[in-house]
Amino acid sequence: MLQSKLFGKTQKFSSREDISINEYFLQKAGFITKTAAGIYSFLPLGFRVLKKIEGVIRKEMEKIGGQEILMPALHPKEYWKKTGRWETMDDLYKLRVNNKEFALGPTHEEIVVPLAKNFIQTYKDLPLYLFQIQTKFRKEKRAKSGLLRQREFIMKDLYSFHENEKDLDVYYEIVKKSYFEIFKKIGIKNYTYLTYASGGSFSKYSHEFQVITKAGEDTIFICEKCKIAINKEIINETFACPICGNKNLKQEKAIEIGNIFKLKTKFSEPFQLYFTDKNGEKKLVQMGCYGIGLGRLMGTIVELFHDEAGILWPKIVAPFDVHLIPIGTQKNIDKTAKKLYDTLQKEKIEVLYDDRKNKSVGEILKDCDLIGIPIRIIVSEKTLKENSVELKERNKKVKKLIRISNLIKILKNLLIL
Amino acid sequence: MLQSKLFGKTQKFSSREDISINEYFLQKAGFITKTAAGIYSFLPLGFRVLKKIEGVIRKEMEKIGGQEILMPALHPKEYWKKTGRWETMDDLYKLRVNNKEFALGPTHEEIVVPLAKNFIQTYKDLPLYLFQIQTKFRKEKRAKSGLLRQREFIMKDLYSFHENEKDLDVYYEIVKKSYFEIFKKIGIKNYTYLTYASGGSFSKYSHEFQVITKAGEDTIFICEKCKIAINKEIINETFACPICGNKNLKQEKAIEIGNIFKLKTKFSEPFQLYFTDKNGEKKLVQMGCYGIGLGRLMGTIVELFHDEAGILWPKIVAPFDVHLIPIGTQKNIDKTAKKLYDTLQKEKIEVLYDDRKNKSVGEILKDCDLIGIPIRIIVSEKTLKENSVELKERNKKVKKLIRISNLIKILKNLLIL
Repeated sequence: MLQSKLFGKTQKFSSREDISINEYFLQKAGFITKTAAGIYSFLPLGFRVLKKIEGVIRKEMEKIGGQEILMPALHPKEYWKKTGRWETMDDLYKLRVNNKEFALGPTHEEIVVPLAKNFIQTYKDLPLYLFQIQTKFRKEKRAKSGLLRQREFIMKDLYSFHENEKDLDVYYEIVKKSYFEIFKKIGIKNYTYLTYASGGSFSKYSHEFQVITKAGEDTIFICEKCKIAINKEIINETFACPICGNKNLKQEKAIEIGNIFKLKTKFSEPFQLYFTDKNGEKKLVQMGCYGIGLGRLMGTIVELFHDEAGILWPKIVAPFDVHLIPIGTQKNIDKTAKKLYDTLQKEKIEVLYDDRKNKSVGEILKDCDLIGIPIRIIVSEKTLKENSVELKERNKKVKKLIRISNLIKILKNLLIL
Repeated sequence: MLQSKLFGKTQKFSSREDISINEYFLQKAGFITKTAAGIYSFLPLGFRVLKKIEGVIRKEMEKIGGQEILMPALHPKEYWKKTGRWETMDDLYKLRVNNKEFALGPTHEEIVVPLAKNFIQTYKDLPLYLFQIQTKFRKEKRAKSGLLRQREFIMKDLYSFHENEKDLDVYYEIVKKSYFEIFKKIGIKNYTYLTYASGGSFSKYSHEFQVITKAGEDTIFICEKCKIAINKEIINETFACPICGNKNLKQEKAIEIGNIFKLKTKFSEPFQLYFTDKNGEKKLVQMGCYGIGLGRLMGTIVELFHDEAGILWPKIVAPFDVHLIPIGTQKNIDKTAKKLYDTLQKEKIEVLYDDRKNKSVGEILKDCDLIGIPIRIIVSEKTLKENSVELKERNKKVKKLIRISNLIKILKNLLIL
C-alpha cells in the first residue's frame, strides 16, 4: 500500500487529556475514529488489524471443531422473555420493528438454542460446536477507555452442545487451552491470567481471561504459585487460591478479554432442548459458551505494547509486515525503494510504502513509530553506498545494515509467525 | 468437511406453500434458518456461500482502488437530522441509547461523510474510495421472498469522493464495469440489466442492476437493442430507451441486486465537506455511492439457478467444490473415498464428504442434488472395478467414469474460475 493513498492520516493531538492509551494512539495513528461515545469506525489500518485478529481466532476455533455460522443482531422479544432476561438484563437495547419488540443482541444464547433445536434430535447430533464473529450491542453506562468498553463491538462467540456434563467438562478444558493458544500467538499470553469468577447459580465458577494492565477496570487477585487469579467479585467468599489454598494473593488491575462459562442446562431448559440418548431416554442438552471481544483485544494489545512514540504491534496482528521508507532526494533511492516494494509484494510480504513527498524526514520517522509496524526498512544514500538497506525492528533499538540481496531471506526469518 | 458432522441437516418440507424459491431451497438444504420475518441465520453451508460472495466483491472493490473500512450500525440522530433524513426516511429504525437517540444504519452517507471530513483538506486527498461490507437494518413493511427482502442484511457499500463532476463521472463508469465484472464472475451477467432509475432531484438518472426473475418485485422495461432497461418508476416520463429512443420495450419482473448513484454534493453540502483545489479555492466535494446486497445476491442466484431437485451453485460461490459420495458396503469403497478426501484437501479442493451411514442411497443422492455442489463424485463397486470414480456436474446430465489417477487434473480443469 502506498502511504500517500492510505485513508486515515496520522492526527495531531496536543495532549492525551483524559482518554485511555489505546484510544489516544489508535486515533492519533489513524486506526479508528470515534462516531459517538463507545461507538467507533475502523479505518483501513484498524480494519486490517481487526481482520488479522479475526483470522487468528477463526483458525483456532476451526481447530477445535467449531463450525462458523452467522446469527442476526435483531432478536425477537419472545426468546428473551422465555429465559427471563428481557427483564433482568440491564444492558439490553430494545426497539420496535413493525409493531413487534426486538432486542439488539448483546449475546446469542436466546438465538442459538432455538436454532440448534431445529437440528438436534439424538445423541448422534452431539457434540456440536457453533461459533460466529459478529457485531453485538450493549448499553454500557460508562462507555470509555476506547476499544476496551464499546457499545457496539465485534465478538467471537462459541456455543457447545453436549450429551452430558462430563463431555462438557472435557470440551471446556479444550477451549481453555485453545484460548491460551490464541493469546500466545498474539503475544499476550504472559500477561493473561485464567481468572475464577462467578459461575451464577448453576456452576461453581466461570473463568475469565484477564490481562494485567493499568487501564483495566476489573480487580483480580493473583496466585503466583498456580499462575491463576480470582476476580474481586468472588474474592470475599474465600480469599484463597481455589487450586492450592494460598492466601498470599497479589492485587492487580486487569481487563477481561474473554470468558468461558458452563451453562449446563440453563438455556436448554427454557427452550426445551432435549435429545434422545443411546438408551432412548430424553435428556436436556448440556451447554457451554465461550466469548472473546475482538475490538477489546485490539485495544488491550495497544495498552500492553506501546512506548512514548507509539504502538508496537505483535507481528501476527500488525496492519503490515514492513514499513518501507526512502529517505533523500537522489533518484536512485526512490527507484530502489520502488523495486523493493514490488519484490516484497511478490513475496507476499505486506508493505506500507511511505511515498509521501510533502513530509520531512522527522515527520516520516515519527509517523512510522506511531503506526508501529514491526519492521522498518530505510533506503538512503548512505545505505545504497553499501548496496544495503537499514533494518530496524520496532521493539528493538539496534539498526542493521542488510545487503539488498539478503533482505528477503532475512525478512522471512523475522516474519515467521 | 464430513457431512455427518455438518451442522444444518437437510429438512423435509411437504410443499413449497407460499414461500419463495430461494427461501424454500435455502432452508430445505440447510443453508439458512428463519429467526423472524425478514431475519435469518446463516448455517455453515450458507455462511460459506456468503463468504465466497464477499470474497469476489472485495477483490473487485480493491481492484478499483477501494479501501476497506468498518463503520458502526448505531448512528447518532444529529447526523440524520443534518441531512433531513431522520424525518423523511421511512425505513429507519430508531432507538434510545442512554438518553440519546440513534438510528440503526440502513445506509452510511450520514457516517462516512463526517468521517471523510476528518481527513480531506485539499485536492491531494482526492479522489478517495471507501467501502465496507457490513450489516444494515431496514424497516421493510413486506419482509418476504426469503433473502430477497430482509430487515437485517449484509451490504457492500462503496463511497467515492472527487474534486469535480468530471472525475465522478469517470469513476462512476469504472464502478459500472466493476459491477458487471462481479456479476460475470458469479455467472449472472447475462440475466442482469443496467437499469435507468430515478436520480432524485440532483441527477437525471441513477442506475440499478436488475436481474430478470419471476420472484422480482420490480418491473422493468428492456430495450433489446441497447441491452439496458428502464425502471417502471420513471417509465412514464419517456417510455423510450434513454440511449436509442426505441419505444419497443419488453416488460419483465426483476430484482435489484445493486445500485449506483451520483450523489454529487447532496451530502457534502449539509456536512460542509469542502476541499481546497489547485488554485486555493474552497469547493464542495463531489460524491458517488454504490451498493450491492450480499444476501439478496445469494437469494437471486438460487432463484436463477435451480431445478426441481435443488440448487445449482455457480462454482465461484458454491459452499464446496466437490461432493464426494461413497456408495456400497465393500470396505474398499470407504477406504478409497477416504483417501480421495485427503488427497483433494491437500490439493486445496474443497470437499463435502458424505460419510453418513444411516441414509439410503436414494436419500444421499437427493440431498446431494438439493445442496447443489457443482461436482459430484461417486465411488462404488462398479467404478472401482475400473479404477475409476463417477463424475457428474450438477448442471449437466452426463455421468463420466474417470480414472482415479486422472481425477485431480480433471477436477482442476473443471474448477478453473
